[in-house]
Amino acid sequence: MGSQIGKTFKTTVFGESHGTAVGCVIEGIPAGTVLDMAHIKKRMSQRRPGQGTHSTPRQEKDSFEIVSGLVEDVTTGTPLTMLIRNHDTRSKDYSRTKDLMRPSHADFTGHVKWDGNNDYRGGGHFSARLTAALVFSGAIAEQLLKAMGIDILTQIESIGSQTAESLVIRPELESLRMAFDEKGIWISSEHEASFLEEVEQARSELDSVGGVVETIVTGMPVGIGGPMFDTIEGRLSYGLFGIPAVKGISFGDGFAFGAARGSEVNDAFGIKEGQIVTETNHNGGINGGISNGMPIHFRCVFKPTPSIAREQKTVNIKTMTEETLQIEGRHDPCVAIRGAIVVKAVTAMTLYDLIRTEAPHV
Amino acid sequence: MGSQIGKTFKTTVFGESHGTAVGCVIEGIPAGTVLDMAHIKKRMSQRRPGQGTHSTPRQEKDSFEIVSGLVEDVTTGTPLTMLIRNHDTRSKDYSRTKDLMRPSHADFTGHVKWDGNNDYRGGGHFSARLTAALVFSGAIAEQLLKAMGIDILTQIESIGSQTAESLVIRPELESLRMAFDEKGIWISSEHEASFLEEVEQARSELDSVGGVVETIVTGMPVGIGGPMFDTIEGRLSYGLFGIPAVKGISFGDGFAFGAARGSEVNDAFGIKEGQIVTETNHNGGINGGISNGMPIHFRCVFKPTPSIAREQKTVNIKTMTEETLQIEGRHDPCVAIRGAIVVKAVTAMTLYDLIRTEAPHV
Amino acid sequence: MGSQIGKTFKTTVFGESHGTAVGCVIEGIPAGTVLDMAHIKKRMSQRRPGQGTHSTPRQEKDSFEIVSGLVEDVTTGTPLTMLIRNHDTRSKDYSRTKDLMRPSHADFTGHVKWDGNNDYRGGGHFSARLTAALVFSGAIAEQLLKAMGIDILTQIESIGSQTAESLVIRPELESLRMAFDEKGIWISSEHEASFLEEVEQARSELDSVGGVVETIVTGMPVGIGGPMFDTIEGRLSYGLFGIPAVKGISFGDGFAFGAARGSEVNDAFGIKEGQIVTETNHNGGINGGISNGMPIHFRCVFKPTPSIAREQKTVNIKTMTEETLQIEGRHDPCVAIRGAIVVKAVTAMTLYDLIRTEAPHV
Amino acid sequence: MGSQIGKTFKTTVFGESHGTAVGCVIEGIPAGTVLDMAHIKKRMSQRRPGQGTHSTPRQEKDSFEIVSGLVEDVTTGTPLTMLIRNHDTRSKDYSRTKDLMRPSHADFTGHVKWDGNNDYRGGGHFSARLTAALVFSGAIAEQLLKAMGIDILTQIESIGSQTAESLVIRPELESLRMAFDEKGIWISSEHEASFLEEVEQARSELDSVGGVVETIVTGMPVGIGGPMFDTIEGRLSYGLFGIPAVKGISFGDGFAFGAARGSEVNDAFGIKEGQIVTETNHNGGINGGISNGMPIHFRCVFKPTPSIAREQKTVNIKTMTEETLQIEGRHDPCVAIRGAIVVKAVTAMTLYDLIRTEAPHV
Repeated sequence: MGSQIGKTFKTTVFGESHGTAVGCVIEGIPAGTVLDMAHIKKRMSQRRPGQGTHSTPRQEKDSFEIVSGLVEDVTTGTPLTMLIRNHDTRSKDYSRTKDLMRPSHADFTGHVKWDGNNDYRGGGHFSARLTAALVFSGAIAEQLLKAMGIDILTQIESIGSQTAESLVIRPELESLRMAFDEKGIWISSEHEASFLEEVEQARSELDSVGGVVETIVTGMPVGIGGPMFDTIEGRLSYGLFGIPAVKGISFGDGFAFGAARGSEVNDAFGIKEGQIVTETNHNGGINGGISNGMPIHFRCVFKPTPSIAREQKTVNIKTMTEETLQIEGRHDPCVAIRGAIVVKAVTAMTLYDLIRTEAPHV
Repeated sequence: MGSQIGKTFKTTVFGESHGTAVGCVIEGIPAGTVLDMAHIKKRMSQRRPGQGTHSTPRQEKDSFEIVSGLVEDVTTGTPLTMLIRNHDTRSKDYSRTKDLMRPSHADFTGHVKWDGNNDYRGGGHFSARLTAALVFSGAIAEQLLKAMGIDILTQIESIGSQTAESLVIRPELESLRMAFDEKGIWISSEHEASFLEEVEQARSELDSVGGVVETIVTGMPVGIGGPMFDTIEGRLSYGLFGIPAVKGISFGDGFAFGAARGSEVNDAFGIKEGQIVTETNHNGGINGGISNGMPIHFRCVFKPTPSIAREQKTVNIKTMTEETLQIEGRHDPCVAIRGAIVVKAVTAMTLYDLIRTEAPHV
Repeated sequence: MGSQIGKTFKTTVFGESHGTAVGCVIEGIPAGTVLDMAHIKKRMSQRRPGQGTHSTPRQEKDSFEIVSGLVEDVTTGTPLTMLIRNHDTRSKDYSRTKDLMRPSHADFTGHVKWDGNNDYRGGGHFSARLTAALVFSGAIAEQLLKAMGIDILTQIESIGSQTAESLVIRPELESLRMAFDEKGIWISSEHEASFLEEVEQARSELDSVGGVVETIVTGMPVGIGGPMFDTIEGRLSYGLFGIPAVKGISFGDGFAFGAARGSEVNDAFGIKEGQIVTETNHNGGINGGISNGMPIHFRCVFKPTPSIAREQKTVNIKTMTEETLQIEGRHDPCVAIRGAIVVKAVTAMTLYDLIRTEAPHV
Repeated sequence: MGSQIGKTFKTTVFGESHGTAVGCVIEGIPAGTVLDMAHIKKRMSQRRPGQGTHSTPRQEKDSFEIVSGLVEDVTTGTPLTMLIRNHDTRSKDYSRTKDLMRPSHADFTGHVKWDGNNDYRGGGHFSARLTAALVFSGAIAEQLLKAMGIDILTQIESIGSQTAESLVIRPELESLRMAFDEKGIWISSEHEASFLEEVEQARSELDSVGGVVETIVTGMPVGIGGPMFDTIEGRLSYGLFGIPAVKGISFGDGFAFGAARGSEVNDAFGIKEGQIVTETNHNGGINGGISNGMPIHFRCVFKPTPSIAREQKTVNIKTMTEETLQIEGRHDPCVAIRGAIVVKAVTAMTLYDLIRTEAPHV
């Protein structure tokens, strides 16, 4: 709870966007793990803004330092702490708007929660910059899962009005695995252009746009998770809603279940190469909260970035008057794109923790 | 985790559908609370099956006994334990199908998880019968929330192809409050007939049907919840996915955010009667994971009941052969209906726990 | 925390001395465990009062009922719930003294904590009767530890002015193992008479007397526990102070360390039959909070039963006047004796939980 | 658990003696707290070695940096992270003895626990250097407690064979309060010389010596703590055993209770200035695990520093041969002295957390 997630593989996140540093402490990495630093850096670079027209031009070096728990890239078994110093934090961007509550941001709720002491600069502890720590921890979890044969495939499924095919029906999924690994997240080559156009259109209209991220986890052993308050659905959601702008999560057929008949969406069991499998996977690889060996399949929706350049109505919390606000600063028009790599990270952290905690079949 | 939820208001659920009893232990009810027994009984009766054509004819008396933590209806401050004895448990219904894994049920995953020792009778610990304990605990939380001016309004929004208006746009919501309280959940009178027809149609075709449950929480103080892993979204989801058959959850505009523009869905702040409010509520009352004082608004989708009377393909786990299965027993064709009262209960448990843990503004 | 202990093997205790029932819910017993019911009953009977001159004549049948998590003595993997109905609860014994705070009891602190709503009858949730639930859970943990080759040997080391030899120096410890198992706790045959005389003397003087309980755990694997807040010392103490009347705990040489020199109490390492051992065991089998393979060795001191038959000065909480009180009822003159079996139980619960949570070498 | 303590005021400690840094993340400091930096620095300097003949000459600057959760000395409400860079870490001191397991240290147990990957240099995560993070967190908790009128008075009660009067019987305790605050811990002026002589004697004989630390907490409100697994005794012990070298803890009369009669040690209630008080305080301010308003009183025993300059028998873990070892490096002959300031810190952290979690009477 709070800024911490995990039971056995436990990550405590700290920092503010425009403070001294952001980072995390990770407990529960097995002693003797040789951290794949190139992999970690690749993932962190994939999250980092400033890499294309579709993300904020703010330059974040994200050059991290590990200050505990590691001796010559080998983990010691004790807490591993990572630190990213903040640079290029133009705090003056924010000082003018200190008392103007940005609509659909956490300025107002944070102000009330912490009696006006919250670090308002750049979103403070709410900033998407904090997700760098999640991506760091997730990259380690991903490495540990991969060693068990578990892969997390994440794609941008839709941006605004444009939608790609679901991963579920892509026949070439297997052949894409390497590409997923290399690029971190997948953007269908057929749809990349229309996605970016959608983003560019929003930007040019001083606006932002939402999107949906789809994830498939292959290689999950049967029997992970549990009923009641150990469901894979509940655990993943708990973590994924920690990513700024995520507002909905669904598993398997998701909201389409509402209009479905049982006879259409029940997944019949069969036997294939001596293993029990299901012939379809409407349930997203989960029965009764527990993995059934099929791919775990879910979607997250990201709302449009609340920071838009248009003039908006708001309130001045100091003077308690209604005013208008024009957000300047540098912002992604579509947080779903960079958010996808964080979805992958939180998925890795959560599933690795579940497996390590329950462990029976791995 | 496991069979337990909550930090300050903590409920541990136990029992199996066809074992001796189901029940729960609740820690964290304030000492000196006079339990409203009539209210608890009303809620438990609203969940109980056997009350109409749309639910299973199994007779569950659900007559509960409180065995600790209470002296003459007043709580003592120590753990309160509630017990419901199981009766009318025709275990023979299930013995014939012991080795046949019911599709989209937890028979297979439970079997693997617990090495064949799971109580297979009637779903065991996975049974919807366990939700009686959640409704009990939720009724107490609801009473405690109501004393703070917080109400939970839950409606069946859709069944199969039939959809009612969202609560958000019902102008008469205020006047319905009493009715919500009395009936537990709301079924729009305009849609009740078409909903039941949808259910009856499914039943007559030996099938089942899904549905969507919508909830609005009014009266939430500003500042409850937090960023990262204390978000109201994450906490509610964690609990709600513990309800059997829930497969998706979304807040405010939910998956519609994916196709939206920021300018359309940002909730502008304004001042009304000296209070900061938002002019719209696309974000479902939550900014940055924290309540902003507007109604908390979310939806859960229930998949169709996996137990259907049609013949289905499956696997015999003992002989490892493919077979067919015809589920007899007694089952709701649409779990969303009775599930709605459990959504209300888990919402109450989670929000009361959050408020009691954080407490700053209440 | 609260009424719950354990991370992987988790026990939630509930009930009041003079309420309807006491009991517990246990999560984390491995599925498929065949519970040794005779062993559980033996341990519960060893805790039960009314068995000799040295304990209260109150008749507690302690006949327990398991209402969930078990099918024909085999655990299912889901929460196991146990219930003991209270009988022979002469509540009238207590009603007269309701407002008189018994010295060194929890009447006053419980009254303040729960605003006068605590169940005052017989100590309520503070009653030693609650330890029946601990002994039940501990008996199961003991069975599971024994299967790993781990034994818990507990003796009454001293009562009042009479002290037996430490287990550490008993040459025949090995040969006593069976006796320990059979009797639950050990009372040195050389000292039994003098111990009982001490108790009888206290009773005849309308008084009570304290005692020290010593425990040795053999067979512990190396590497269980951890630095900081996973020390075996910290975990055991956390649990053991949950036993009413325990007021001190020490490991190995304990308080004698204060006057010792390092050269006297450092445990030199050596090799014996290919294994690293220590030549002495001043540290009680724990280095840096972690088991080193030598016997875990510790002591708990029990204060004299606060319920004594002599007239005592106290306060009437209702009238806020100073009064005198003469406790009637039925009370052990020396709680250390029955407390010893609870020490054994809590030790088993804690160590089994630690091993199951960390698991690396078992 | 692990490297983390607290429920509401939660501290996660990280680092190794000879790694890059040690530090901690603290969640739960109320937003808007103006940190008393002078007080924090004073406490950290009181723990720091190299200040007298009685402690190691290793120079630790302990100059800390706060990298999150603070804007201009005011807390924001989000996690506060503190970092102390390690300097003067003569790692070569330790490399020679890498495979020689130091007796009564955690070298062997840590080696087994983490499969030989533990950071052996200077004790790694087990090092007393980690207590700098506890003192930092404790200093903040102490400031917050003091604002509630709660003071923690800690003295060195004995070193080796020399024992000072208990704080309990010092008539001038009130007048010493300022001195306690200024010096952090108290060493009776009558005994300071004999204590230091005892330490010097041990050092000159290439040996070390144990000691006992006594603590009194004044100003505790009535009703904090709880029965079973919320006892003040259990919570404090859980934290205090996290301090290296602590091997025993006792409350009030402690182990003397074993030989006492109830009539001698029951604390009679009386009324003084309209408040309920006890006439004696044998129970150390705690009844039934809950504070009764009297001073909380307890003792911790520290074993002699295991690092002594004499030749000792040990085992080479690589060659599995018995060898001798002569520890060089720089070590306190008596860890109880510097340990006392850590006792004070952990006491503050634990009690502040308990009060903030339960909060009812404060």
